[in-house]
Amino acid sequence: MEKKEKLTIVLFSGELDRALACFNIVNTAASMGMEVTVFFTFWGLNVVARPGPRFGGGPIKSMLSLMNRGGAANLPLSRLNMGGIGTFLIKRLMKKEKMPTLEELIRLSKSQGVKFIACTTTCSLMGVTKDLLIPEVDSMAGAATFVEEARDSGISLFI
Amino acid sequence: MEKKEKLTIVLFSGELDRALACFNIVNTAASMGMEVTVFFTFWGLNVVARPGPRFGGGPIKSMLSLMNRGGAANLPLSRLNMGGIGTFLIKRLMKKEKMPTLEELIRLSKSQGVKFIACTTTCSLMGVTKDLLIPEVDSMAGAATFVEEARDSGISLFI
Amino acid sequence: MEKKEKLTIVLFSGELDRALACFNIVNTAASMGMEVTVFFTFWGLNVVARPGPRFGGGPIKSMLSLMNRGGAANLPLSRLNMGGIGTFLIKRLMKKEKMPTLEELIRLSKSQGVKFIACTTTCSLMGVTKDLLIPEVDSMAGAATFVEEARDSGISLFI
Repeated sequence: MEKKEKLTIVLFSGELDRALACFNIVNTAASMGMEVTVFFTFWGLNVVARPGPRFGGGPIKSMLSLMNRGGAANLPLSRLNMGGIGTFLIKRLMKKEKMPTLEELIRLSKSQGVKFIACTTTCSLMGVTKDLLIPEVDSMAGAATFVEEARDSGISLFI
Repeated sequence: MEKKEKLTIVLFSGELDRALACFNIVNTAASMGMEVTVFFTFWGLNVVARPGPRFGGGPIKSMLSLMNRGGAANLPLSRLNMGGIGTFLIKRLMKKEKMPTLEELIRLSKSQGVKFIACTTTCSLMGVTKDLLIPEVDSMAGAATFVEEARDSGISLFI
Repeated sequence: MEKKEKLTIVLFSGELDRALACFNIVNTAASMGMEVTVFFTFWGLNVVARPGPRFGGGPIKSMLSLMNRGGAANLPLSRLNMGGIGTFLIKRLMKKEKMPTLEELIRLSKSQGVKFIACTTTCSLMGVTKDLLIPEVDSMAGAATFVEEARDSGISLFI
């Protein structure tokens, strides 16, 4: 039954609502004593990117990095974003209800020992290097590492 | 091997197509004798919301509830919605092919003993109380309940 | 522990980025000796559809097939598609970085023995017959087949 003691999540999405759902599950599982790993891939890299555009690596990468701004504080909603108005309203509501922000949830998960892995394939595609990511990211690794972790996990989710 | 007898789904999405996929899997698994739980969170709450806007809880919640109308009969498609035309066409096609509607799939799953849990965190964020949800919802609970269920499940999916 | 030797994925999404994530995981798991099954449903059918519109089955199906063009080479991004510009840029970047295309990843997975199943319910809804799908698709089956496979799998994902 030890298999059920691990949770592994692929965070593919870069939207605020999905990232909030991810980190709510992550923090809950960690507080219940589970060993948790989050594998950040594709748009999910934005969640652990330092804010601001990323440059370098040629014109296409620069253009993509400009359009695809990272940083947990800058993520849009997957629905009702409405040029940022919906996102602003949800954030205000969360504050009013005294809910933790995404950045706080990320820090909390780290203090609970959650492992953060950034996908090397996406990083090289998008021109993201380790120093462009927040320090909470433990390592960079490929899909094989995810599969290894998930094989040992009682719960594996793709978000 | 008893572990494989449970299926737990987080329904995060509030779109017709994803809800249909969810309830097709749910009903199939239940008819195969599996114990099934669906945990409705974020936009997924719309699937089990009573139709019409929800009010109360201050101006932001009222505004959000107006823009985010609930009810299984009112969900848009995640793609090709086109102001409702695509959704209308898919629904007509489903009717023509004599496929059950989402509302029918929900009722069927209930008659098969599927457990419906609404996420308390989302409910308090969006100002949704139990009486604004359809009676098929058994209870309201937090992420810890989901993690507990998923730990015991052979299949856990995030939709 | 033999349970952990199987991976089953529902590919519900029809976007290039999600399909790439799916086939990266699939190929990695297969190369690690896992038995892999991909169940293509709803928009995910586009990934294994032959290119070009599909006709027949009445006016609604024809209209939907025109708006919902299939083929692994024609999929849009889920974000930053921008009328195809973002998708074009990502594809150029992948080529420049010498990454395999989605079509190559699909062929590779097939050569590694990955099983492809197309969802019969979606096929009949959208008027898709076996000859409109790429030859890599092994069979057409319903949700019961997915549930059976997933029950035996150490990792099950909904993408």
